[in-house]
Amino acid sequence: MRVLVNISYQGSQFLGFQIQQNGRTVQQQFEKILKRMHKHDVRIHPSSRTDRGVHAIEQYFHFDTELDIPEQQWQYAMNRALPGDIYVNHVSFVSDDFHCRYDCVGKSYRYKIYQSKHKDPFLNGLKTHIAETLDIDKMNTAARYFIGTHDFTGFCSQKTEVVSKVRTLYESRIEKTENGFDYIVTGSGFLYNMVRVLIAFLIEVGKGKRQPEEIPKLLEDKDRNKVPFTAPAEGLYLEKIYLTPSELTTDFGNDIKLHRKKSI
Amino acid sequence: MRVLVNISYQGSQFLGFQIQQNGRTVQQQFEKILKRMHKHDVRIHPSSRTDRGVHAIEQYFHFDTELDIPEQQWQYAMNRALPGDIYVNHVSFVSDDFHCRYDCVGKSYRYKIYQSKHKDPFLNGLKTHIAETLDIDKMNTAARYFIGTHDFTGFCSQKTEVVSKVRTLYESRIEKTENGFDYIVTGSGFLYNMVRVLIAFLIEVGKGKRQPEEIPKLLEDKDRNKVPFTAPAEGLYLEKIYLTPSELTTDFGNDIKLHRKKSI
Repeated sequence: MRVLVNISYQGSQFLGFQIQQNGRTVQQQFEKILKRMHKHDVRIHPSSRTDRGVHAIEQYFHFDTELDIPEQQWQYAMNRALPGDIYVNHVSFVSDDFHCRYDCVGKSYRYKIYQSKHKDPFLNGLKTHIAETLDIDKMNTAARYFIGTHDFTGFCSQKTEVVSKVRTLYESRIEKTENGFDYIVTGSGFLYNMVRVLIAFLIEVGKGKRQPEEIPKLLEDKDRNKVPFTAPAEGLYLEKIYLTPSELTTDFGNDIKLHRKKSI
Repeated sequence: MRVLVNISYQGSQFLGFQIQQNGRTVQQQFEKILKRMHKHDVRIHPSSRTDRGVHAIEQYFHFDTELDIPEQQWQYAMNRALPGDIYVNHVSFVSDDFHCRYDCVGKSYRYKIYQSKHKDPFLNGLKTHIAETLDIDKMNTAARYFIGTHDFTGFCSQKTEVVSKVRTLYESRIEKTENGFDYIVTGSGFLYNMVRVLIAFLIEVGKGKRQPEEIPKLLEDKDRNKVPFTAPAEGLYLEKIYLTPSELTTDFGNDIKLHRKKSI
């Protein structure tokens, strides 16, 4: 039986999703509980690996089990054993050929920024602080340049180990909030550190140090040295995982270009 | 020169205010910085010691220095060296006979509760979760019984080591919020765990398990065994420190009973 689990977590106190030799990770918290329940190791497979300090409003993972436990009971059992910074929102059974990573056709991220003269210790780890005034309209203009299918080599970590750095973004926009703004970006997939590099560039635009019109050339140049900053992890939230193409076309229209990992 | 420092902190990752042999405390963070600046140990004296996991929207401490540094520069130097979960809001010079603890004539606490079927990992450590529906009006009626001068022996930790357990509360009320409510309480002083015992009792009233009318008898009985619960630290915020009687009379009127530690 394959079990699909929808979770949220506050990432501040985790070294990331993926299990590590030493240190507290989201995967480690779940595999510890599942091992206790199964009396043997159980591996979980997430839709997305989040880095140290990154949060998830919605994340999925799946695992296989021989235990005969109803869906709601799985949710209850895991929540009872989990620490307060992780929560299981929903559990469902899926077919054995479903795979959280390969069936993921898109993801949304939200990057949260608050603006004030003084830092707020209660937003520490939850939003990134910027003291300067930013030109939000200009940032929004710049954000739109990223929409579409591009080679994002110039906007990801140089440590990115994938062959193709072509990704399609369906949405890329700034949304004002009470004390600052969020950057919302949805795409077929994201390269290592890509969202944090995109928002760091947009902040430079907001400060007037870069111009929206530079973006087409920067995408073409594929040179990370021309886009030097990476915004901190604390403002980054994995917000939504698209597990079916129809979810994506509902949100962004039938004309969008889909990338299906399974068929590659 | 005596320096008065107004700070805020998010308490989740601290073992409390007071320095300990091992572990991260607010006092330790400041004394480490001050030692580096002075090249010798400097002791800080807070208005209030907060427990493990308790937050401070406003807290004060003072220390003595021989360094010739302007007020704003003190703020800047400390904030630059502090971790993100502590912030210095203001620094001022005070007379040598001023003392943060002995000049404190009152304090306000706020206890934050959110109500929902599901736990929210993003409120973990910041608000206390209650799934049940509560009768807020009844809680407010009960809260008002605590206002005035009472012996709070029945409503504090049995470990409280002070002689007199008589305290005056100027304010005790429930305030509705977007996702729950806050309990706000202001008094001349508070006994160990007192706010957490008061709110735990009010929650029992909200659930219909206790009645507001029981309170006068419970105060009279002075028996902690009759008030068995203590609410968790995570929802508790030290909100305001009153350092002069006039601040208190401005907020609560000239007729209030003042307790001045200095004259005791």
